[in-house]
Amino acid sequence: MESLKGKHVLVTGGAGFIGSNMCSALLNAGAYVTAYDNLSYGNYSFIKDFEQNLNFNFVKEDLLNIEALEKALRENSIDTVIHLAANPDIRKGHTNTDLDLKQGTIATYNVMEAARKTSVKNIMFSSSSVVYGRAAKLPTPEEYGPLKPISLYGSSKLASEGLITAFSHLFGFNYYIYRFANVVGKNQTHGVIIDFIKKLRANSNELEVLGNGTQKKAYIDVEDCVNGMLFAFERSNEKENIFNISTDEQTSVAEIADAVIKRVAPNARIRYTGTEQGWPGDVTNAFLSAEKLKALGWKPRMGSKQAVEHAIELAINAASN
Amino acid sequence: MESLKGKHVLVTGGAGFIGSNMCSALLNAGAYVTAYDNLSYGNYSFIKDFEQNLNFNFVKEDLLNIEALEKALRENSIDTVIHLAANPDIRKGHTNTDLDLKQGTIATYNVMEAARKTSVKNIMFSSSSVVYGRAAKLPTPEEYGPLKPISLYGSSKLASEGLITAFSHLFGFNYYIYRFANVVGKNQTHGVIIDFIKKLRANSNELEVLGNGTQKKAYIDVEDCVNGMLFAFERSNEKENIFNISTDEQTSVAEIADAVIKRVAPNARIRYTGTEQGWPGDVTNAFLSAEKLKALGWKPRMGSKQAVEHAIELAINAASN
Repeated sequence: MESLKGKHVLVTGGAGFIGSNMCSALLNAGAYVTAYDNLSYGNYSFIKDFEQNLNFNFVKEDLLNIEALEKALRENSIDTVIHLAANPDIRKGHTNTDLDLKQGTIATYNVMEAARKTSVKNIMFSSSSVVYGRAAKLPTPEEYGPLKPISLYGSSKLASEGLITAFSHLFGFNYYIYRFANVVGKNQTHGVIIDFIKKLRANSNELEVLGNGTQKKAYIDVEDCVNGMLFAFERSNEKENIFNISTDEQTSVAEIADAVIKRVAPNARIRYTGTEQGWPGDVTNAFLSAEKLKALGWKPRMGSKQAVEHAIELAINAASN
Repeated sequence: MESLKGKHVLVTGGAGFIGSNMCSALLNAGAYVTAYDNLSYGNYSFIKDFEQNLNFNFVKEDLLNIEALEKALRENSIDTVIHLAANPDIRKGHTNTDLDLKQGTIATYNVMEAARKTSVKNIMFSSSSVVYGRAAKLPTPEEYGPLKPISLYGSSKLASEGLITAFSHLFGFNYYIYRFANVVGKNQTHGVIIDFIKKLRANSNELEVLGNGTQKKAYIDVEDCVNGMLFAFERSNEKENIFNISTDEQTSVAEIADAVIKRVAPNARIRYTGTEQGWPGDVTNAFLSAEKLKALGWKPRMGSKQAVEHAIELAINAASN
């Protein structure tokens, strides 16, 4: 049982999609927050307003600069690291095979190495449903195995999990590994909803959809996701924690395409590229069991379809600004 | 169903403990063999005799030199890589935290990256029981989860597994991941048996044993281990393979200490350091289920105790030469 109030928290990827929502939630909970981001994918506008809060500061630096990271941990007396930074585009690993090794695995190594040299006690980490690969069991529980990721993004998440469990055992951290469903919502910068809106703005007659439309995943609103992470941190009595964070329904790519078309370009036809996978490394049927987190008392405000609808509205409004 | 006869196989760590035994088995099976080793832990004397075989060649190079690796794969028309090279001493990761990242995870990345640029089709990999961490279920089956390694060596094995599953999905390799019990026997250069013999040669009155002696693991003779790897490669019809390789009994550290004392210094007293773990990151109770491999028809020649006794004899004779 940990309280966030008064904790000194560093959020890697703090200016990014999930990171900026996390900073907001942490400030609301009374924590001191340091956002650490190289702004390669993050966006300073997402955190600009927080700068007025005396409990917030921003460090523009790279996780591959371990000296800068160690300095940020030390100068801000960090006791808790929430490690969210990563390459956000799973597809890129297919053509740029060392991207996730560097921005995933080695970045996580640096986080743990800098943490052990300073006064960090707690590590929270954004892992993903993709560590399961194409799971034979759906919804997939945390104890599912063997883990056979099919993307290099997935392999970097699995590698990061192992680094966190080993460093924590050897050097005494409490860890909270969260395996996310597909996260959507406020400040989203990438993913299927954003792709569809961009494509329809470029061509309102036709929407090209990668795959055959039957890919099904559970989506979760980013505020529910962040709330789930902090809920588990505050409620769990364990030192070693692995939690799936998900809604309990799936939404298909075809349903998302229909929903975006309805709002953006009602006359557009859909053209499916027709393959089973949207891209090499795509897990076409992903569905996590969140029963373990629910047993602690958590539940998401929105289901999968509602989260998608909400995210479409937010993305349309953000794109219009 | 694959035959080894006529295959062009590169063995990383080919001059090492398991690697040298693997090269011997491959040559006997009619394969063309390239041993790739930087001789940091390997020993040229283990493979010297193979040089007379026209089907064998040795490349003294480092896996962190990816250009040299790619060249070796290309020049030897390699279709099958057996990736065994790694830091052999699990304990070192506690003080040298980037050792397994480099010699484990990044080395494996290089193997897969070089493989995808050349004509490699099959990957065999020496993973380990340590990927399971302190498993709640013993004997531990391949589908056990969640995987929570407690050593950085273990985290690098888990990271390597994920790199192999992802690269194989994206670029079409067949993979064979083998999770080993504790391997002992011919050409062994490290591990508890070697440690005890060295200590008793230095002081024949007392044997210091790390831990309280109750640590229990299943040991397997290296020739049985290599045979199990090649057996699975030749018999499995799957593209994606994960197999535990183990005997089906455990041997305690106290039993090993007694057996070594009996042969080396019968009057020595044992002094236990008394902790539960022998060292930080030690899994004190490890026991793999090898039922999946046995179902294909494999079985080891020796049990755990017999493998230990045999390894003690071999190590004593090797040390006397």
